[in-house]
Amino acid sequence: MSDAPILSVPARDLPVPAHLSPEAQAMLSLPFGESRDYPAVEDADAWRKMIATQDEFMLSMMADRAASVEADVELIDVDGVRVYDIRPQGHDPADDRVYLEIHGGALIMGGGAVCRAMGLNSLTHAGARMWAVDYRMPPDHPYPAPLDDCVGAYRALLRDHAPERVIVGGGSAGGNLVAATILRARDEGLPLPAAAVLITPEVDLTESGDSFATNLGVDGVLTSLLMPANLLYANGHDLADPYLSPLFGDFSKGFPPTILTTGTRDLFLSNTVRMHRALRAAGVEAELHVLEAGGHGGFFGMAPEDGEITREVRSFVARHWG
Amino acid sequence: MSDAPILSVPARDLPVPAHLSPEAQAMLSLPFGESRDYPAVEDADAWRKMIATQDEFMLSMMADRAASVEADVELIDVDGVRVYDIRPQGHDPADDRVYLEIHGGALIMGGGAVCRAMGLNSLTHAGARMWAVDYRMPPDHPYPAPLDDCVGAYRALLRDHAPERVIVGGGSAGGNLVAATILRARDEGLPLPAAAVLITPEVDLTESGDSFATNLGVDGVLTSLLMPANLLYANGHDLADPYLSPLFGDFSKGFPPTILTTGTRDLFLSNTVRMHRALRAAGVEAELHVLEAGGHGGFFGMAPEDGEITREVRSFVARHWG
Repeated sequence: MSDAPILSVPARDLPVPAHLSPEAQAMLSLPFGESRDYPAVEDADAWRKMIATQDEFMLSMMADRAASVEADVELIDVDGVRVYDIRPQGHDPADDRVYLEIHGGALIMGGGAVCRAMGLNSLTHAGARMWAVDYRMPPDHPYPAPLDDCVGAYRALLRDHAPERVIVGGGSAGGNLVAATILRARDEGLPLPAAAVLITPEVDLTESGDSFATNLGVDGVLTSLLMPANLLYANGHDLADPYLSPLFGDFSKGFPPTILTTGTRDLFLSNTVRMHRALRAAGVEAELHVLEAGGHGGFFGMAPEDGEITREVRSFVARHWG
Repeated sequence: MSDAPILSVPARDLPVPAHLSPEAQAMLSLPFGESRDYPAVEDADAWRKMIATQDEFMLSMMADRAASVEADVELIDVDGVRVYDIRPQGHDPADDRVYLEIHGGALIMGGGAVCRAMGLNSLTHAGARMWAVDYRMPPDHPYPAPLDDCVGAYRALLRDHAPERVIVGGGSAGGNLVAATILRARDEGLPLPAAAVLITPEVDLTESGDSFATNLGVDGVLTSLLMPANLLYANGHDLADPYLSPLFGDFSKGFPPTILTTGTRDLFLSNTVRMHRALRAAGVEAELHVLEAGGHGGFFGMAPEDGEITREVRSFVARHWG
């Protein structure tokens, strides 16, 4: 990489596009958070402290909206895996569809109460009963524990659900685990789910995509590379292994229909469009939606523009229940 | 716009992504051309000189590939409009499909021999007989003459072709005229074609999209804004009129299934994704493909990555002949 040619781009002022909704403009006008200062990989206590702080922040962002979602939530034990079983109000017990939701948080954060809130906030995607997997995470449980838990929850679901009644989805790090879960389950002989939902997915832990450079400093949400977290997660395993970086998987051996979403300012723009291209090249049904000026996670549900993406996901999911 | 909030991005070095093909890396490693210095709008002679120079350059880029395409080409007069009638070798006269190709070139360039060469180079998209419209252009024939010619060619085609046997496509400025032709033909009561192909389309002459800022200096092909050419084309008409900027059209009144393609470094990334969103919001069948690290026009057919997009377009077109 070091002797690769380089394009020098001068300092620039990027205006907030005037054609966006006032809410989206307000979101893009927020001052950037500080670039995240990651602890050293071996300093587990420092990681725990950083994760606790971040989880608290994420929960504060999501709690109000989650509280407004009308659903019954039960924490259940599925073969030793913690799962929030979320039933939308008025759920018909005869309706056997389950949306397996795998939360985001850089593969190190977003567990417990955050997982629960994220699940509730994604319930509109599912339009069905949801299992939100509260998978184990670093620093105490690095790879492969998180993936083991996700695959375990999927395997358990298949004991009493037809695979065409299961859809697997998630955003960011959750998108990594969605794709990795499907690849590993397939490799272990399990059937494919009906569909996959990949919201701005972190499918390449090597961070080789172009937008890791072009959108660094442009995305107001992911304001630094995530390599320290990736290394903590990988715990010495090869970052380019398809179970860690599913972008490098072999999709020609089977992968379900997939919807992928991102934004033009998203640090994971390249992750998303490369995954779309890889799936299409393998003949997998896959559709891509890109939000104008959206960073990682779009406008976090605060702008009407987010509704367009939510409607696309919900409509895709509704079409793909077997 | 002047008091809109601004994001200051420091100077940066963007490496050429090492995961791209050698050909794509070579293309991204080329030194940028100089930012284009446009003449004053009223200096027609200076425009003619600039256009002649650019046309010569474009022809030199495309001539070899065009010469290798096996097809019969005839320049015909269609109700006063110049059209290159291109029949692929072995064309069956009973095959009544026609792909109406509208060339690019910033709405001011790309006529004559360039139009012919661009048509031949796009024949692989069509997989059928092609009509490449050599529409009139500024400075002598500004809006609405170019659009009049495209609509005229479409109207003429419909005299002896069912609309479901006609697909309309084009790149860049051609994408503008494709969408504007369909909107105006529809408004004039003509039936819709079977499908539309919009390759990195210039659908917003007001240049309001985010990538006009974020990808300026990043796209190695479109290295400056095109506003002077837009104003020359518009000749005093409102740039935001849907016949000049079809992004602002009302697609809920009817628009055919559409494929849209762009690249993450494309100055027209926002044009393309906004047009995709506008079509989807109106319930139009529309699919989006984004080439990793591709600038305007991808890698100009010089890299294997371009083949992915060509295959998508060709497959979309093949599926949509009625």
